Amino acid sequence: MPRVLESYVGGGWVTPADAGQPLLDAATAEEVARFSTQPADVPAALAHARDAGGPALRALTFHERAGLLKQVALTLMEGKQEFYGLSTRTGATMRDSAVDIDGGIGTVLSYASKARRELPNDTVILDGPPEPLGRGGTFVGQHVYTSRHGVAVQINAFNFPVWGMLEKLAPAFIAGLPSVVKPAAQTAYLTELVFRRMIETGLLPEGSVQLVTASPDGLLDHLGPQDMVAFTGSARTAALLREHPSVLRGGVHLNTEADSLNCSVLGPDAGPGSPEFDLYVKQLVTEMTVKAGQKCTAIRRAIVPHSLVGDVVEAVRERLAGTVVGHPGDPDVRMGPLASLEQREAVRRAVGRLRGSAELVVGDLERFELRGADPERGAFLPPMLLRCDDTAAEAPHDVEAFGPVSTVLAYDGSDEAVGLAARGRGSLVGSVVSHDLDFARAVVLGLAPWHGRILVLDRDDAKESTGHGSPLPVLVHGGPGRAGGGEELGGMRAVMHHMQRSAVQGSPDMLTAVGNRWVKGAARRDDGVHPFRKSLAELRIGDTVVGGPRVVTRADIDHFAEFTGDTFYAHTDEGAAAANPLFGGIVAHGYLVVSLAAGLFVDPAPGPVLANFGVDSLRFLTPVKVDDALSVTLVAKQITPRTSADYGEVRWAAVVTNGDDDPVATYDVLTLVAKTAL
Amino acid sequence: MPRVLESYVGGGWVTPADAGQPLLDAATAEEVARFSTQPADVPAALAHARDAGGPALRALTFHERAGLLKQVALTLMEGKQEFYGLSTRTGATMRDSAVDIDGGIGTVLSYASKARRELPNDTVILDGPPEPLGRGGTFVGQHVYTSRHGVAVQINAFNFPVWGMLEKLAPAFIAGLPSVVKPAAQTAYLTELVFRRMIETGLLPEGSVQLVTASPDGLLDHLGPQDMVAFTGSARTAALLREHPSVLRGGVHLNTEADSLNCSVLGPDAGPGSPEFDLYVKQLVTEMTVKAGQKCTAIRRAIVPHSLVGDVVEAVRERLAGTVVGHPGDPDVRMGPLASLEQREAVRRAVGRLRGSAELVVGDLERFELRGADPERGAFLPPMLLRCDDTAAEAPHDVEAFGPVSTVLAYDGSDEAVGLAARGRGSLVGSVVSHDLDFARAVVLGLAPWHGRILVLDRDDAKESTGHGSPLPVLVHGGPGRAGGGEELGGMRAVMHHMQRSAVQGSPDMLTAVGNRWVKGAARRDDGVHPFRKSLAELRIGDTVVGGPRVVTRADIDHFAEFTGDTFYAHTDEGAAAANPLFGGIVAHGYLVVSLAAGLFVDPAPGPVLANFGVDSLRFLTPVKVDDALSVTLVAKQITPRTSADYGEVRWAAVVTNGDDDPVATYDVLTLVAKTAL
Repeated sequence: MPRVLESYVGGGWVTPADAGQPLLDAATAEEVARFSTQPADVPAALAHARDAGGPALRALTFHERAGLLKQVALTLMEGKQEFYGLSTRTGATMRDSAVDIDGGIGTVLSYASKARRELPNDTVILDGPPEPLGRGGTFVGQHVYTSRHGVAVQINAFNFPVWGMLEKLAPAFIAGLPSVVKPAAQTAYLTELVFRRMIETGLLPEGSVQLVTASPDGLLDHLGPQDMVAFTGSARTAALLREHPSVLRGGVHLNTEADSLNCSVLGPDAGPGSPEFDLYVKQLVTEMTVKAGQKCTAIRRAIVPHSLVGDVVEAVRERLAGTVVGHPGDPDVRMGPLASLEQREAVRRAVGRLRGSAELVVGDLERFELRGADPERGAFLPPMLLRCDDTAAEAPHDVEAFGPVSTVLAYDGSDEAVGLAARGRGSLVGSVVSHDLDFARAVVLGLAPWHGRILVLDRDDAKESTGHGSPLPVLVHGGPGRAGGGEELGGMRAVMHHMQRSAVQGSPDMLTAVGNRWVKGAARRDDGVHPFRKSLAELRIGDTVVGGPRVVTRADIDHFAEFTGDTFYAHTDEGAAAANPLFGGIVAHGYLVVSLAAGLFVDPAPGPVLANFGVDSLRFLTPVKVDDALSVTLVAKQITPRTSADYGEVRWAAVVTNGDDDPVATYDVLTLVAKTAL
Repeated sequence: MPRVLESYVGGGWVTPADAGQPLLDAATAEEVARFSTQPADVPAALAHARDAGGPALRALTFHERAGLLKQVALTLMEGKQEFYGLSTRTGATMRDSAVDIDGGIGTVLSYASKARRELPNDTVILDGPPEPLGRGGTFVGQHVYTSRHGVAVQINAFNFPVWGMLEKLAPAFIAGLPSVVKPAAQTAYLTELVFRRMIETGLLPEGSVQLVTASPDGLLDHLGPQDMVAFTGSARTAALLREHPSVLRGGVHLNTEADSLNCSVLGPDAGPGSPEFDLYVKQLVTEMTVKAGQKCTAIRRAIVPHSLVGDVVEAVRERLAGTVVGHPGDPDVRMGPLASLEQREAVRRAVGRLRGSAELVVGDLERFELRGADPERGAFLPPMLLRCDDTAAEAPHDVEAFGPVSTVLAYDGSDEAVGLAARGRGSLVGSVVSHDLDFARAVVLGLAPWHGRILVLDRDDAKESTGHGSPLPVLVHGGPGRAGGGEELGGMRAVMHHMQRSAVQGSPDMLTAVGNRWVKGAARRDDGVHPFRKSLAELRIGDTVVGGPRVVTRADIDHFAEFTGDTFYAHTDEGAAAANPLFGGIVAHGYLVVSLAAGLFVDPAPGPVLANFGVDSLRFLTPVKVDDALSVTLVAKQITPRTSADYGEVRWAAVVTNGDDDPVATYDVLTLVAKTAL
């Protein structure tokens, strides 16, 4: 008898006491594993996450957390063949498994890489620049993100047992929030296997990730204002979660991503024979057949110009004729079964409802060819295209057949296309296939308030396009209204979404201490050693060098103009410069000012400073006139050691002033500095 | 008989049909006005907002919307004496009225100013940089914010009838979302007056703001996924709103800001005689007495070191002895009545519950002095301080007395202070009063996950500090958990909070068309006219100039080092430069590269380009070696006309390449350009 799936709770694997319910192979109905019907020990999982996982994660910097995730992901990638084998039993073809397994692991790698590039090597994220709150500069605001002291409970859908887990776990982990993963029963055996391999790496801090393969009863009961619930699934279940007392009154942060009736709009320019027509049909068929259409992002509504409806239907019919449906282990099979017989039954019912206002024009629920599989035991369906000519019909905008099903709707003009799309009441994704810039722009801006993601597909980007149905870790995933109102991915936005944003008000010294970034007005330190002589280990935030004064002569300006070729009239022509409304006379080049400033602050001998790799936010505030005496102050502002190099980045705040002490230019200088003295 | 307050709905003032309920003067119980008890015509208001207000607002750019708000605010400021007169009847002293009236108008001005500085002069906001999605550069992502096609319903509390309306209305207006304002009945006569003066300016597009002074019944029933509800009030009402079907299943965006049990922590360093001790006591008394303590942000819990509890109680007692309570129109009066007799009764009940676990140490519910007012008719209370020595007590962390009431709690060590603060289950604001950087930092980071705003008050910022209880338009206002989970203010974050964020994927040309910002890889235009010769009216996004090549000689580098004084070894010392792990030989100064590039792209003669005012995101990507030939490409990236000047800002994308066409440096050049040819 197949074993009952185990939970990983409180630091070890826990075997359920009950016999569980059987989980069947989607294609053969053989039993694969069993799933406990009794509630898991949620209080134990939460306590372990709070007492062990949270503190352990919060003790690491963002870069350290990202580094661990990267190693875990590389280990999973090495052993992925094992996952593919088990994935077949969920009904997934090789292509489907790649989306789930490689897609999931790739998502972790993307987060890990972006975190190290875009977040500080610290435990606090600064949000935006300091906000001056008083004229004197002694009272300043700074928004910071800190880790919540809670738990992220992640309730996943059955369709992507690997990706679904990893896309939620990665940003929570980087945010410092321990995860409790609750997979959907139907495909939990694959989630359990991948989770087991993650734990076996020994890399993840104890309590930082736990797995609950058991009844979800009571999962939300013990959550509070520091906790999050991220849910992917039906709009109906999402509404039930919103009604839970922990959410209504307990302050739990709830994020939901629900199925939506995503649309794809074909442009009127894209008739048969155009590259866009072929792209449209190919994409529609792909979205109908990948994962047998069991994707929250699949195209449910094909919005097509009136005059092109017939052409689209015929082209889809033709393309689908070559789509082999059958056992997912067969390499020739393009579309496998649905995840379960229950899912097949639900899709059949939904198609029945759609047929109340639409005609089934491609595919036959009762008769279709099947390769190497038993239509009675496996959850097979054919791809089905419906056509609805009744513009008042509600069903195509409301009934989601979560399978290989799409409905063609006709429109005239971009306004009607946008209006039809909006009748879905909010979607995860919409696409526009058109090479007409004006049409596409109008539709994109019309769809935007209703969509989390919008793809414009055309001949220019088709080769690199990842397609309508693929959420990407760097882009928002989630959508308004019916799509759940969630926002789960989106690069570092997803990390910050797991953290608390607070405004901190205080003196510059206080804000420097809180954020580890020097704030204008905070103490500057000059211990007699030039800061360019200090390694990362020696350098402190606030270390300062002051250089100057150097007088800028008319000869300097003339010479710089001649030498660089920058003979702009404000630097060279007295009369014209005097007429300039902002200058009223000859001014020094901005590039001359910063070049001279570098000459005033640099320490020339070899040392720990390796290179100046950039400048940020340079602003010229006061024109530099002939005979102005320039001084410069350079303060170590932020120090970011790189995990994988023997140097790190130092951001310096530079201010150039004139003889009246007016700021002439402010900017950040970026250098690479060795970690230890060379 | 006083008139029934009117609603402004559907383009005109509507007089309710019923006699309404009386609204009484807080100090004298005289009737000031009446408030309709019948539901307003909400469907008419929503239809007008959707059909007229929304389209009118969305037709304006952010700068134009901000400009209108600024004019309206300046008009209100001119006529503010009228508002002060009526404000007294709500129980507000002059000081209280300033917070509400000047604070509210100032908030509008702050939003208007920030929008013009930080948002594009456009209708779409770009969120973050383009995200490359393919190696070939033909497929790119860009997050955009667009205006929702809905309505912002704003349900305000009684305590700030002016500020409460304006702080919600301003960001919604700038976001392009029409507002329907629902004030709390008790003080709605002041809201109605200010609203009337706003409408009379004639500046606000018809339907962009409406007022509902009537029963809130049915207010949410007709809302959907494009609509928002922003609520300020009790946690209990917030939970009721969360239960509304429009929110649970209809996709309405709900933002709530609820009362919270805000804390103020005194540092162990801040004993009697220190500046911080005095600041702490003064701030606590201020927060107890401003608006008679009827502020969502008031200090309810004074968290004080064990050893200082007695000192704090005595100092508060002493300071409160000089606080005159009485008729708010009397200039000597420091604290007026509560807003209504019902509020007074609610506070009395809450104090009763607090006394179950705390001792009333300052103030007497039954006996207190009153200046120029009748204690029977007016809703007067004395300031009251309680002391709770029972660390297990729940009431001080749970019972909010929404009046001049605070409870002193004792702690030992920063961990216990943070733990006590967290027992409030989420607050709008917390403060720390200490001059000990380490203690304050530990408490700030401990409080942060539980707070929307944290003030550190000390001798350094006291002079400019705006205080514990003052939300600021540039900082987050709202807090997690019990505080409602909302996030209403916070500068341009509040504007974006009213918009929909979507990821758009497409070719560089498509993204350029959608976002009005040139994306790398999009078409470049060279019509033979140097773009520096074009005014804002003539310049187009994508206009390009290419300059170069110019060979950088060793003599150039030597000369630049000598001329600027930047003799860093990598530019001057062959041997040392060869040993540099990143360069392996002499390299040109980064500043030399950008100086020469300017010489290659500049058009020197007087023309529409007035000045280079800055450089952003300069990165040196490839070292420039001796005899490298540099070329530069400059593309008009973003054009931002200024509303109040005859010029605007042009952002140019610059790329410097070497002879191998490798990018050597990339950056944005910022110039001011005249709107029309000079």
